[in-house]
Amino acid sequence: MKKVSEIMTTDVATIPGSARVSDAVNLMRRKGIHTLIVDQSHEQDAYGIVTAFDIVAKVTATGRNPRQVRVYEIMTKPCLVLNPELGVEYAAKLMTSAGIHTAPIIQWNLLGILSVTDILNQGDFLENPQEDALAKQFQALLTTARATCKQNGAASDACRQAWDAVDAVEAEAAYQKAEILEKTAFEEFCEEYPEAFKDREYDTWCSG
Amino acid sequence: MKKVSEIMTTDVATIPGSARVSDAVNLMRRKGIHTLIVDQSHEQDAYGIVTAFDIVAKVTATGRNPRQVRVYEIMTKPCLVLNPELGVEYAAKLMTSAGIHTAPIIQWNLLGILSVTDILNQGDFLENPQEDALAKQFQALLTTARATCKQNGAASDACRQAWDAVDAVEAEAAYQKAEILEKTAFEEFCEEYPEAFKDREYDTWCSG
Amino acid sequence: MKKVSEIMTTDVATIPGSARVSDAVNLMRRKGIHTLIVDQSHEQDAYGIVTAFDIVAKVTATGRNPRQVRVYEIMTKPCLVLNPELGVEYAAKLMTSAGIHTAPIIQWNLLGILSVTDILNQGDFLENPQEDALAKQFQALLTTARATCKQNGAASDACRQAWDAVDAVEAEAAYQKAEILEKTAFEEFCEEYPEAFKDREYDTWCSG
Amino acid sequence: MKKVSEIMTTDVATIPGSARVSDAVNLMRRKGIHTLIVDQSHEQDAYGIVTAFDIVAKVTATGRNPRQVRVYEIMTKPCLVLNPELGVEYAAKLMTSAGIHTAPIIQWNLLGILSVTDILNQGDFLENPQEDALAKQFQALLTTARATCKQNGAASDACRQAWDAVDAVEAEAAYQKAEILEKTAFEEFCEEYPEAFKDREYDTWCSG
Amino acid sequence: MKKVSEIMTTDVATIPGSARVSDAVNLMRRKGIHTLIVDQSHEQDAYGIVTAFDIVAKVTATGRNPRQVRVYEIMTKPCLVLNPELGVEYAAKLMTSAGIHTAPIIQWNLLGILSVTDILNQGDFLENPQEDALAKQFQALLTTARATCKQNGAASDACRQAWDAVDAVEAEAAYQKAEILEKTAFEEFCEEYPEAFKDREYDTWCSG
Amino acid sequence: MKKVSEIMTTDVATIPGSARVSDAVNLMRRKGIHTLIVDQSHEQDAYGIVTAFDIVAKVTATGRNPRQVRVYEIMTKPCLVLNPELGVEYAAKLMTSAGIHTAPIIQWNLLGILSVTDILNQGDFLENPQEDALAKQFQALLTTARATCKQNGAASDACRQAWDAVDAVEAEAAYQKAEILEKTAFEEFCEEYPEAFKDREYDTWCSG
Repeated sequence: MKKVSEIMTTDVATIPGSARVSDAVNLMRRKGIHTLIVDQSHEQDAYGIVTAFDIVAKVTATGRNPRQVRVYEIMTKPCLVLNPELGVEYAAKLMTSAGIHTAPIIQWNLLGILSVTDILNQGDFLENPQEDALAKQFQALLTTARATCKQNGAASDACRQAWDAVDAVEAEAAYQKAEILEKTAFEEFCEEYPEAFKDREYDTWCSG
Repeated sequence: MKKVSEIMTTDVATIPGSARVSDAVNLMRRKGIHTLIVDQSHEQDAYGIVTAFDIVAKVTATGRNPRQVRVYEIMTKPCLVLNPELGVEYAAKLMTSAGIHTAPIIQWNLLGILSVTDILNQGDFLENPQEDALAKQFQALLTTARATCKQNGAASDACRQAWDAVDAVEAEAAYQKAEILEKTAFEEFCEEYPEAFKDREYDTWCSG
Repeated sequence: MKKVSEIMTTDVATIPGSARVSDAVNLMRRKGIHTLIVDQSHEQDAYGIVTAFDIVAKVTATGRNPRQVRVYEIMTKPCLVLNPELGVEYAAKLMTSAGIHTAPIIQWNLLGILSVTDILNQGDFLENPQEDALAKQFQALLTTARATCKQNGAASDACRQAWDAVDAVEAEAAYQKAEILEKTAFEEFCEEYPEAFKDREYDTWCSG
Repeated sequence: MKKVSEIMTTDVATIPGSARVSDAVNLMRRKGIHTLIVDQSHEQDAYGIVTAFDIVAKVTATGRNPRQVRVYEIMTKPCLVLNPELGVEYAAKLMTSAGIHTAPIIQWNLLGILSVTDILNQGDFLENPQEDALAKQFQALLTTARATCKQNGAASDACRQAWDAVDAVEAEAAYQKAEILEKTAFEEFCEEYPEAFKDREYDTWCSG
Repeated sequence: MKKVSEIMTTDVATIPGSARVSDAVNLMRRKGIHTLIVDQSHEQDAYGIVTAFDIVAKVTATGRNPRQVRVYEIMTKPCLVLNPELGVEYAAKLMTSAGIHTAPIIQWNLLGILSVTDILNQGDFLENPQEDALAKQFQALLTTARATCKQNGAASDACRQAWDAVDAVEAEAAYQKAEILEKTAFEEFCEEYPEAFKDREYDTWCSG
Repeated sequence: MKKVSEIMTTDVATIPGSARVSDAVNLMRRKGIHTLIVDQSHEQDAYGIVTAFDIVAKVTATGRNPRQVRVYEIMTKPCLVLNPELGVEYAAKLMTSAGIHTAPIIQWNLLGILSVTDILNQGDFLENPQEDALAKQFQALLTTARATCKQNGAASDACRQAWDAVDAVEAEAAYQKAEILEKTAFEEFCEEYPEAFKDREYDTWCSG
């Protein structure tokens, strides 16, 4: 899975909140873009965002004069921000479940901007669908876990950590497909080796 | 105010609902677009629409394989359609209040497609804000109404029709600005000429 | 499937946006209706709508005096409009997915109004459920397609058009039932006749 | 203000959750109604509701056969219920802010049903708008409070209770009109009689 | 299933709508709670509610001074109320489907308050999941119905009433699990005893 | 304004997505908390969250057995995350506008968790409302800007930067109060010194 930082646009246009909407329109038209970031006003401040949709919804649609409306009146602030390390598929979920088409990437500073169109054009979901990737990863981790536990014993810390990794990917894959897991691979392992891991904090597992 | 037909894009890409999402992605990437129209399956059928957002939200974000998902599984159908004669400002309101970025224009046939970006770039809301246009129109109609009623009498049909036009634009302008009208220009006229229009169907006006 | 024009109510009451809400209430009570259309103020203008729900929500519930509120303050404008040729089932989907109980039918002029109650009482979904109708239509089109291709050859335009019709109805039926199609009838045909249709614009089909 | 019990419809049609949607349609058509109540299945159970909108949205619009869908598949349960003693204006707010057109009235048993149309037709909001009623009530309570405190002393329980009543109505009126109160009538009183009520639980009032 | 009255908190803090938000904050902090009920202003009045979320959303997030905002400006009124007899599982559904974390319990008077946390901590859904309870209840009622009808005859009122009870619980269980019932237990019974119950108001059942 | 890191809870409980909901309930009950974080399954993975509300809404309310439902089936993933440096007021806005009661704080690692109750109890919005803080900051920056420009000249970079700071805070304050600025302090300055800053990228300012 690609990371957000690999496909984001790093050339980001910013505008002050006190600028007129007509300035925002001109800047967007000149640069051929539809999103501007509104900079922080001080260090603890949040970032804002203003899009073509905001302008069309709150100025054009209401007949207001764009020379008499300021950017802060129509911006969204604070706005959803993305972490550059996040996987593109997770960024896709975060943005679309919030109904958002574009989001800034911030880590200390403003690093870039990511749009749904960037994801469509530069994501690798066509060549490398996540469900296939997770299925492979699960198989690899499962093989490792069984080998590790054989070598170190079913009650060893190494065995336990290996199963934690299997568990996490198996749950993630089931979550993505909205599938129900009757029994996880680990739970099957527990039935074979009931002596394992009796001390988990969330306590019903391997309770045998 | 420009009409939708003046700024819409007439080169529209269509795709069957039975096509794979991978086909839709390839078509979008090749044409540099982010909206496809799904054609009617028979005459009374509605049009559907599929956007980059739909693909990112329902395929990328869920990790599904785009070669195994079909367009009809992720399209919106029926979709909001616009009339070619509609004013761009009204199209802006209709689209944005429904949270929609693109809509097809249909009159018997599919004529084109209109996006929020088209409105931003080609609307004339910067040069000719609707609130100014409505204010001018109101003044012109008001002058006409007063002249017409002087000439034809306050109880004449011509006078009545002239005031209907004033009323409509005055209400529209107040609606756009979310203003409250204590008394309309017509109601002021009524106080001067209480004999006018006693027979309106919605009956409290000029009740004197 | 019936068309919207077959079951709509053609006797529609209109009211100007400048009228008082008390006028709207009186008109509704006198006519025993709960929807009024607000006429266009000029040619490119949109239609508006005001319902009993709007009055109860925005005037009754807030304790305001209906003699001091005007219709334009509580109307919805522009409103969703329906095409008279649209099938009733599609109108049902368009209205209910927008949370709307009544919509005007417009083609150049205001032709009528359609409510959810009209659909309940006069639709033929009880006698003639669309899923049955689509299933029959699919069978008929499938028979035709196979015959046409036999007669004209698997690579003929006539064959191709016949399959387009099958495809469209099959996708529509699957869409209605939220079913997944592993393989369409056309794709099965492709396996028998791999020489067919290599040139589709959306290119994975019949790629053999 | 009228009470819900004064304008509700007491003739309510019920249907079991196990009935077919086609039965619900026939019952609605025969009785000329658009809401049915789904009875409790046991004493602690909630009531359900099924409306014409539910049928059109979940059966007609999706093309399903109403003879193969049961009422429980499309009903809303539990549903919002109203108290018979509630004022009609509050019922209006509760229903419309939840986007609901009809609600059952329940107190131990099912007493009736109230629709937005009932409120429009039988509410007295036209003759007796709540904002006028609250304004009168406020004046009367204010006169009483000042008289009571004069007679019993500013620190008396009777005075305190009288001001509680004034306060409640003043806040309610301001709430209805979305107005801000810089200083309440009671706070003005406090400035005149700073010895009053030092012991309120929410402690900044009359802190002088 | 427990009743709402068994797990609600009966010690409820109230505040007048005219109080300052700073008073509400201090009261919440002192009592370690996050919900206050706003009392009725007169008998037909509704109850209001103000929560920590309301304060954080409408005062903290907007930077307003809590000493200058009054409770009525940020409360929700009328608010959803629960019946003390309602089963906890139904209260859970009613609250969560409305997006609400806390609701007052009212019957004539304010009896208590119920929060999502109360349900989590004191509900018996862990020990006694409703799906198991309904399954047991269904089996018991089914046995009773078959016995009753054998004894009194398939066309007897006693038989009919017994089946109504079976039907109600079967539909409820299917509703909870979002399952489709091809044929209900009663419909199977009808096939065995087609003479039964020809006169139901919703008329397709046992039509044989 | 306090920072998120100053008031967040650093003792955060996590749970694997593959755990049973019954484990989550027991963990919450034992620790007296209502939010658990679901850890990443690999480095680019997002964090998930599961709350008491999720459990009550998706398990209790639907009658499902919590021993047969896993955490991943009811969690929200990816979830909104907060930056530790963000001001509490902005966190308040971000959380409440998304309808969220609790969010994790992440920077490379999971640092803590912040709830609406934390903000209510530990924010300093009561002692130090942001609108007062912004007003003071604006006055200080304004004084600085005027002094800087006097000293360095109206066309100097130092002057320009000083005004950028004024502008940002003035827009932020107006945004918070939803106020319209007819003319900003900077625009007034421009009228006095029209030679200033002709070259801004967003071009209408100081255009004289």
